[in-house]
Amino acid sequence: MADKAEKMKARLPRGFVDRHSADIRAVDAMTRKIREVYELYGFEPVEQPMIEYTDALGKFLPDQDRPNEGVFSFQDDDEQWLSLRYDLTAPLARFVAENFEAIPKPFRSYRSGWVFRNEKPGPGRFRQFMQFDADIVGTPGVAADAEMAMMMADTLEAVGIKRGDYVIRVNNRKVLDGVLEAIGLGGAENAGRRLTVLRAIDKLDKFGPEGVRLLLGKGRLDESGDFTKGAGLEEAAIETVLRYIETGEVEGNEGVEELAQIRALVAAAGYDDGRIKIDPSVVRGLEYYTGPVYEAELLFEVPNDQGEIVRFGSVAGGGRYDGLVSRFRGEPVPATGFSIGVSRLTAALKNLGKLENTSVTAPVVVLVMDRDTESLGRYQKMVSDLRKAGIRAEMYLGGSGMKAQMKYADRRGAPCVIIQGGDERANGEVQIKDLIEGAKAAAEITDNTEWRASRPAQFSVKEEELVSAVQGVLDAQKAEQSEAQ
Amino acid sequence: MADKAEKMKARLPRGFVDRHSADIRAVDAMTRKIREVYELYGFEPVEQPMIEYTDALGKFLPDQDRPNEGVFSFQDDDEQWLSLRYDLTAPLARFVAENFEAIPKPFRSYRSGWVFRNEKPGPGRFRQFMQFDADIVGTPGVAADAEMAMMMADTLEAVGIKRGDYVIRVNNRKVLDGVLEAIGLGGAENAGRRLTVLRAIDKLDKFGPEGVRLLLGKGRLDESGDFTKGAGLEEAAIETVLRYIETGEVEGNEGVEELAQIRALVAAAGYDDGRIKIDPSVVRGLEYYTGPVYEAELLFEVPNDQGEIVRFGSVAGGGRYDGLVSRFRGEPVPATGFSIGVSRLTAALKNLGKLENTSVTAPVVVLVMDRDTESLGRYQKMVSDLRKAGIRAEMYLGGSGMKAQMKYADRRGAPCVIIQGGDERANGEVQIKDLIEGAKAAAEITDNTEWRASRPAQFSVKEEELVSAVQGVLDAQKAEQSEAQ
Repeated sequence: MADKAEKMKARLPRGFVDRHSADIRAVDAMTRKIREVYELYGFEPVEQPMIEYTDALGKFLPDQDRPNEGVFSFQDDDEQWLSLRYDLTAPLARFVAENFEAIPKPFRSYRSGWVFRNEKPGPGRFRQFMQFDADIVGTPGVAADAEMAMMMADTLEAVGIKRGDYVIRVNNRKVLDGVLEAIGLGGAENAGRRLTVLRAIDKLDKFGPEGVRLLLGKGRLDESGDFTKGAGLEEAAIETVLRYIETGEVEGNEGVEELAQIRALVAAAGYDDGRIKIDPSVVRGLEYYTGPVYEAELLFEVPNDQGEIVRFGSVAGGGRYDGLVSRFRGEPVPATGFSIGVSRLTAALKNLGKLENTSVTAPVVVLVMDRDTESLGRYQKMVSDLRKAGIRAEMYLGGSGMKAQMKYADRRGAPCVIIQGGDERANGEVQIKDLIEGAKAAAEITDNTEWRASRPAQFSVKEEELVSAVQGVLDAQKAEQSEAQ
Repeated sequence: MADKAEKMKARLPRGFVDRHSADIRAVDAMTRKIREVYELYGFEPVEQPMIEYTDALGKFLPDQDRPNEGVFSFQDDDEQWLSLRYDLTAPLARFVAENFEAIPKPFRSYRSGWVFRNEKPGPGRFRQFMQFDADIVGTPGVAADAEMAMMMADTLEAVGIKRGDYVIRVNNRKVLDGVLEAIGLGGAENAGRRLTVLRAIDKLDKFGPEGVRLLLGKGRLDESGDFTKGAGLEEAAIETVLRYIETGEVEGNEGVEELAQIRALVAAAGYDDGRIKIDPSVVRGLEYYTGPVYEAELLFEVPNDQGEIVRFGSVAGGGRYDGLVSRFRGEPVPATGFSIGVSRLTAALKNLGKLENTSVTAPVVVLVMDRDTESLGRYQKMVSDLRKAGIRAEMYLGGSGMKAQMKYADRRGAPCVIIQGGDERANGEVQIKDLIEGAKAAAEITDNTEWRASRPAQFSVKEEELVSAVQGVLDAQKAEQSEAQ
């Protein structure tokens, strides 16, 4: 044991969090439903490890101002650089390239897992978070992109978001590229300014057309006094971009053609009822997208950190990344896929009251009245018998007396406790104390003296009837609970 | 797309592996069963992130020769050192210390997840692997250790290892410490030699008493010519250690008393039938154990890498770590817990043929005969209809012709394909080709011309009957399959 003086501080690095039972159970239930939809669409689970060679991951994170940051990296003992994955797409690209001959093509796969961003954490922004991805590799046609958008819609409904509360917005990077070319921002030398323009377009939802106009021009001053430098475009160029955002219009462009095809496929499958929409303002932050991009936005309103009422916003997004596998193979390997932000979606469902509260019954607690080995063995046998009957049970393992034990059982939410002291033992009996009934009885004293269920809050049974008596208490509690609902 | 000349090599760092569908599904099914046992024992899921402050994790890995290795570490931008967790116990200790007032005590929790070791990988040894732990914190009595041993036994049986094929072996570090003290290896100055002696004892299973004798003395030369330096003990000290291993005898010792109590509790619950045994040779490698240690060993034999027949060996282990939480709190916080090596256990079940082959039906493939948008829309509608009925389905999304499409369906293991060319379209019909029946028919030509099921390998139905006809094919295949078993 450490000296009080020199003891270490127990704390987590910023941006990391522990997960508690209710959250783990709810996310498990949610991801199970997501998995069912992906499986229905013919996808199979395939997973990559969390560590890859840094160069294999590439640098595709949106934050270009700090090109070496954003990723947790470290050197292996052979001096090669390794990184923790920052998404699930770059490792998939490596996997497909490495196993190209062995996999069926097109290759439909899904994966969920933790990803890591070495960024400044903030409210709702963590340095470790979970994504749930689906991808189709080896398919050039936009029918795959259309299918991805439809699968996004089906997934949101499967987890409990009702039609009308969400929209899948679809755009095409080729269309955006056409606009950028039209205003003279083509070519490698304009990469930085292109990104600034794309980021400005991405802010339409947040700041409206006038805010975007400022960000495309000299810059924008927000309410808090922070100034964001603009892209410095000429007035004519700004007009071209704004007209495009409003109307989707851009001169003869392969991307427009592809969007028309997606629109037709979506309509044929009946998803053109507001579930999937073409929207020229969708950008998506990651650099590796090359064609259609799509985003799932939740439309209901919630208070933000400043207490303002805003749309919940994006919970998933993706697009076509035709260059990512090709980096390894030197031949075209078209691919498209998307990612669900599991924590974001969990937060959304919590907001809607749709997060499944998987009601797991807490364990029955066998109290420890005598601490000699023989008595402990007897209590241990009781929990064993209960467990054999499929009833969650535990013997109290702390060192405290009766009062602390009851407090523990209460804190665990135990349905009942089992008590056997010397007297009960002599009679071959055990006491069962029904904590739910007990709490009700206590409440009645103040609330209502009339209504009283017939179930006793505490009663004795013969030792050999323990399991069936406890089962009886659990059944009665369950029946009462479902009646109450 | 990258130039052929400058393309990157797609490869994983050594010691890391990708996971494929069958493995993911099997491990999911196995961990679900483990979770059920832990829940039955009253444990709740609680998870910590993968990154912690390096000093919070501490240095408890067995490989003391390289004290700074074994762990993946990197500096945060505030210069503090972070590490990837190397087990699930050290992060739990940090969690408990940080949330001490908020949790019920004793605190029963479980967690599964990836851990990382920056070590030389070998056959079956990876740098990222999965553990599944359960711990009770805040309980000094060995009743908790006894319960852990019993839960280990129940868990092994729940995943399919039958009684007699495993043993839970229990020992006590305090007993080992007594032996070490008796031979003059007490005190901090002998820490290194103590570890060498413990490692020698740990090798009893592998090298027998004579091998251990060599490792306790001058050293041991193995068949390959490698020499392992010994602990350099005197003859009398060696005899003391060997006598202890054989008989468990050591002078008056708190640890012996605790083991007697564990033995009694285990017997009271009926686990003394060979499932749980006290065994003086159990050591456990991690340094943080302070009391009872326990290990789950599988007894059936398998060929090792050299083709020799050996016992499968350890798949799980743990013990009491009373000092780990105390480091943070400056007060005693007793705890005990164990860890299942998920990959080891998976390998064992594979060996026994007990790894659940969760038979997921592969998707129905709708072939693409015409590629105009209207036709694609029609095929898309078919898969949508099938999915709505809960049938896994996909439209072929590659660019290839009929033959390649049939090969793809075959490779996916599709139960049937749907075909609609111009003629079928004109008649409002679709063709359903039953690939299982088709394969059977093809096999019969050589095998057996007599036996022939009545189900046709290919047939036409009206477009509106597609879903029910496909359901019919799937039902017939399933019936046939369960008949065959």
